[in-house]
Amino acid sequence: MKREHTDRKYAAELQDLRERILLMAGRVEQMINQAVESVVTRDIDLARRTIQQDSKVNRDEIETDELCLLILAKWQPMATDLRFITQALKMVTDMERIGDLAVNICERAIDLGIDPPLKPFIDVPRMAEIAESMIRDAVDAFVEGDADKAQDVIDRDDEVDELYRKVFDELVKIMREDESKVERGIQVQAVAKLLERMADHCTNLAEQVIFLVRGEDVRHVGKLGKQ
Amino acid sequence: MKREHTDRKYAAELQDLRERILLMAGRVEQMINQAVESVVTRDIDLARRTIQQDSKVNRDEIETDELCLLILAKWQPMATDLRFITQALKMVTDMERIGDLAVNICERAIDLGIDPPLKPFIDVPRMAEIAESMIRDAVDAFVEGDADKAQDVIDRDDEVDELYRKVFDELVKIMREDESKVERGIQVQAVAKLLERMADHCTNLAEQVIFLVRGEDVRHVGKLGKQ
Repeated sequence: MKREHTDRKYAAELQDLRERILLMAGRVEQMINQAVESVVTRDIDLARRTIQQDSKVNRDEIETDELCLLILAKWQPMATDLRFITQALKMVTDMERIGDLAVNICERAIDLGIDPPLKPFIDVPRMAEIAESMIRDAVDAFVEGDADKAQDVIDRDDEVDELYRKVFDELVKIMREDESKVERGIQVQAVAKLLERMADHCTNLAEQVIFLVRGEDVRHVGKLGKQ
Repeated sequence: MKREHTDRKYAAELQDLRERILLMAGRVEQMINQAVESVVTRDIDLARRTIQQDSKVNRDEIETDELCLLILAKWQPMATDLRFITQALKMVTDMERIGDLAVNICERAIDLGIDPPLKPFIDVPRMAEIAESMIRDAVDAFVEGDADKAQDVIDRDDEVDELYRKVFDELVKIMREDESKVERGIQVQAVAKLLERMADHCTNLAEQVIFLVRGEDVRHVGKLGKQ
């Protein structure tokens, strides 16, 4: 039953899957970075260019899905590999959605236009920075099967939530003091909210990794046996 | 090569999967309904009870995932069935997220408390109604493999977007006229936004169905052959 050549091909395809997922995460990370940059520097051109990058991320999802299907059909993997691949299908969907949220931030950047900012941006770029690190580490944790790293991602979500509340409170204050700022205030609040949602997606990614790595002890197929 | 008994068991498990997904969709639909009801009638108790229901939806996701894995491992399905099952893995994640959004609406209901409403709720319940019909029909379309029904779901998303913009504009006007209403206004805006996000998730579900039903003509495994 030696199947070295076959095993090597199978391993190579799994490796290709891992690399594609890392590449996709890198692309999404860059989109987040540029989207917030376009808000902060009021760079409408950058916003437009970033929106265009989203089609690549959409393509990534489709191609990764296809690769997963191909591996499932061709090799019929079992146990850990099967879980890894089915999880990959979910991960890429989350990443694609984070890309969509980056597009939404770019749309806000375009709406806000080149008007002067309501106040200097400090917390919003900080939120983006954390969200970027979260997606990077969640996907690394997935590929490396590192539950501790995933847990670390989940912990960082609290920081993003706190920053969001801070931004929110400040904006409410600004809007209360000057009603002409209500509309812009809501736009900036929306940007902060979108970043908070990205962090939620990353938390979901990280939770899935923990489930994948540690969950096999607690999730029993047996409980479904009665259907 | 007659394997009637085996085939019957396999068919039964696929049928079980379909039924679980429909059941889960029904539960999520009910959560949306109750969440908005709790905002409109300022029923904090109902909000709390609805939040508790979310654990069942989380359980649904885990159990459906397990069933998918079981079917994949046990039967190694190919072609259409393989696509159906991998899509099911994605669908349940979306449904679970919609449940989370319903929880968020309930949290807003609790924050808003029993204070008198800013204005009578008309568009928000209408948004909820459409979102409920969207999840129901998207999941029906998935189970029945009905791309036309899925397209119909996607079309309804525009209506929700339009209602959201209407609610948003009205609230901005109210907040501008009376700054004491800014905080409550933002809470109600958040509820409308959550409903709009639910509709987006349903649109994603429906798009996946169309891809599943019609996509086999346009998506070629072959294009990945070069790795």
